[in-house]
Amino acid sequence: MSTDLPRKPRVGHIRFLNCLPLLWGLSRTAGLLDLDLSCDTPERLGNALVAGELDLGPISLVEYLRHADELVVLPDLAVGSDGPVLSCLIVSKVPLDRLEGEVVSLCTTSRTSTRLARLILAERVGVNPVYRDRAPELATMLDQASAAVIIGDPALRATVEASRTTGLAVHDLGQLWREWTGLPFVFALFAVRRDYLRRHPERVRQVHAALLAARDLGLAEVDRVCEHAAQWGPFDEPILKRYFTEALDYGFGDRQLRGVAEFARRVAKADGGFPTGIRLETLHTTEQF
Amino acid sequence: MSTDLPRKPRVGHIRFLNCLPLLWGLSRTAGLLDLDLSCDTPERLGNALVAGELDLGPISLVEYLRHADELVVLPDLAVGSDGPVLSCLIVSKVPLDRLEGEVVSLCTTSRTSTRLARLILAERVGVNPVYRDRAPELATMLDQASAAVIIGDPALRATVEASRTTGLAVHDLGQLWREWTGLPFVFALFAVRRDYLRRHPERVRQVHAALLAARDLGLAEVDRVCEHAAQWGPFDEPILKRYFTEALDYGFGDRQLRGVAEFARRVAKADGGFPTGIRLETLHTTEQF
Repeated sequence: MSTDLPRKPRVGHIRFLNCLPLLWGLSRTAGLLDLDLSCDTPERLGNALVAGELDLGPISLVEYLRHADELVVLPDLAVGSDGPVLSCLIVSKVPLDRLEGEVVSLCTTSRTSTRLARLILAERVGVNPVYRDRAPELATMLDQASAAVIIGDPALRATVEASRTTGLAVHDLGQLWREWTGLPFVFALFAVRRDYLRRHPERVRQVHAALLAARDLGLAEVDRVCEHAAQWGPFDEPILKRYFTEALDYGFGDRQLRGVAEFARRVAKADGGFPTGIRLETLHTTEQF
Repeated sequence: MSTDLPRKPRVGHIRFLNCLPLLWGLSRTAGLLDLDLSCDTPERLGNALVAGELDLGPISLVEYLRHADELVVLPDLAVGSDGPVLSCLIVSKVPLDRLEGEVVSLCTTSRTSTRLARLILAERVGVNPVYRDRAPELATMLDQASAAVIIGDPALRATVEASRTTGLAVHDLGQLWREWTGLPFVFALFAVRRDYLRRHPERVRQVHAALLAARDLGLAEVDRVCEHAAQWGPFDEPILKRYFTEALDYGFGDRQLRGVAEFARRVAKADGGFPTGIRLETLHTTEQF
């Protein structure tokens, strides 16, 4: 009998639809049982990872860029898009170029999409709205505001319902970024705390492999994932399949890295918010920008 | 798009090793994702089921017998044994027939094993100890006591270490019951609240089928379950495999039903504690005793 009982790695999981294929795969491979999993919003998971309450997990891009020196990125895995993402939106009552001086609500569950929206409105559209933070409920966000930046399942619902909703224009942040830069956008990447990696390199390698295997199985069995999600949520199987297989990009390679570097440069030029000269270190490589 | 969003069934899961094959199977079949699962001790899960905070789940036998009129039993599934169970024990410093007037600690995480132990000591061994409740930590339980009734993982550890521990005798409650009555014992069975079954008969049927499929897959893949459990716990693979495949009996059929009826009769004769004339109703049948 062993007496040296290892502690399971404390891993975050985004409890939005976008990460359901990952959870499905983690379940089906039984990798789930090897993790001490915390399911929460990207914002709270990022805080927990930075605070050392989690060892490894997803972190929104902006939060990662603020804490890149404490974190090492897991390659080949992210939540991003290379075009429309469907679930990160500016929902607007007026054309975007009419938002000068208007109130725009930013949902409190997002840091990256709200920063991306502000960047696009300022630098691409050329308007300076008045921003205010609001809980992610679209009707409330649009009360006494001209537009709202919203992410996750309520945003996907807005995309689906856009054709039926009069007077509201839905602007997809993944699409706006792609049209502006020609690059994919990474909304959240997966990172491990540098101190945890130093103490448990083999365990990190195992969890990384388990996450990749889970992602791959979740996408291979995407029809079953959609059937499951349609049973318990508001979306039907065709929109779910489009979301998982066409909109979302779960990879993190060279093009995604260029998207991250481009975003970091543009935000740094605009108003900083995180250091320049960021060293993005993955398990295999290091990139500076 | 559907707007009538169903709520996932609230299901209990015993967070002891004995139910790990079930959790493994629920994960591998992805049945896990269709449940709102609460992992806890049998005692707390039983309270939650009776209080209506859970719809369905395991409940210790004694607690079931007290509330049989509110519950319907799921057939073919239980946590029991037809002989030594390894994890429900009387650990004693003296022979059992020397416990007259001695202090015996009862662990607070068990209701059924402690009741079974008291029944066996009174009616089979013929002694009347002084009982006291204690948290399930063996050393503390045996401090100023002659014996302790203990269940779950600490009990399994005591079984494994029995050969090495001087001066402590390990008495297996499953084995004592079998020798006394010739019958299997059911420590916990699975039941659904009668009101939930009335409202969601099809959903109950699905969850029951999912639990049976999970149990079957967990046992079919028992080597992987043991490998997993050995990685994160104090037990090695051979003892885990013996526990899951030889000691524990996950079935609930005619012989288990006779074991339950026999226990109910003997306890009722001794001191009651639950009503006589219990109607044990399963999804398919009704039995009165």
